[in-house]
Amino acid sequence: MVQPDELKRLIREVPDFPKPGILFYDITTLLKDARGFQQAVEALASQLDADAFDLLAGIEARGFIFAGALAYRFGKGLVPVRKPGKLPAATVREEYALEYGTDAVEIHQDAIQPGTRVVIVDDVLATGGTARAAARLIERAGGKVAGIVFLIELDFLRGRENLAGYPVHSILHYSA
Amino acid sequence: MVQPDELKRLIREVPDFPKPGILFYDITTLLKDARGFQQAVEALASQLDADAFDLLAGIEARGFIFAGALAYRFGKGLVPVRKPGKLPAATVREEYALEYGTDAVEIHQDAIQPGTRVVIVDDVLATGGTARAAARLIERAGGKVAGIVFLIELDFLRGRENLAGYPVHSILHYSA
Repeated sequence: MVQPDELKRLIREVPDFPKPGILFYDITTLLKDARGFQQAVEALASQLDADAFDLLAGIEARGFIFAGALAYRFGKGLVPVRKPGKLPAATVREEYALEYGTDAVEIHQDAIQPGTRVVIVDDVLATGGTARAAARLIERAGGKVAGIVFLIELDFLRGRENLAGYPVHSILHYSA
Repeated sequence: MVQPDELKRLIREVPDFPKPGILFYDITTLLKDARGFQQAVEALASQLDADAFDLLAGIEARGFIFAGALAYRFGKGLVPVRKPGKLPAATVREEYALEYGTDAVEIHQDAIQPGTRVVIVDDVLATGGTARAAARLIERAGGKVAGIVFLIELDFLRGRENLAGYPVHSILHYSA
């Protein structure tokens, strides 16, 4: 049984990154801990029903780490949701708003067979902009979003509201 | 037993990416195939001895996928080798030459305990510049490079020469 407090102790809090006033939850201190990483993957896995999804979609870049582990654990395939310009074949792109300006994510046009049930994986739910864009990409490609899982949810940013209508699961919650 | 030809059939060859004249080996078609992904991870795992390393280092971004799966499979921790500016705490940085200009990779200064035996993981060995920079980072941090594993090696780019002195293992070889 995974103890959230134990995982939280492995997460380093770095003030003023990436800019002043932001407290960054650094998961690298958890990743390098063998037991911590296993427990984090098992905690994410415990939110998923192997029979209820077909494919995992990992969001670049830290989402790839957990998506890779979960895809291996469940014996499923994996679709990388990438930043623009990284994928070599024809893509679909979805833009999303940042505090200043916009960013975008892409998947290959042929990444998802129609009707495929996809679980989206990322490390942190902040405003939810990237995850929502990933969900729309999957739907535009003909897939169905079976769930969205995060290791960390920053409750105070209310990203969950941005993902209304999708089953969202987070392991660790931070209120500030 | 993994058949390299079977894995190769799952890899898409995309001409002229990222620029004219380059043939890009696209692993996304393998990743999304549940059996293909499992076999790729098992093939990489077969090159490693669980008792001969302590930690995996995944190179951003596609290396994270396989490093995540392998870290889970072996019950080891994982250190992300990242592009500059992504890591929140104090880092060590290693630059490497590109065809035009330079790039760099970073790890946290405290990522690796002295004496730790680290296996580096990436998807493709091209010129070897990134992997060599990653190896140097690990050594500067006090670690020992126990091996470097790739899914794909582009033999004609002779990246292995750039990694002389390190145990290098690749699953699939391409001669052009």
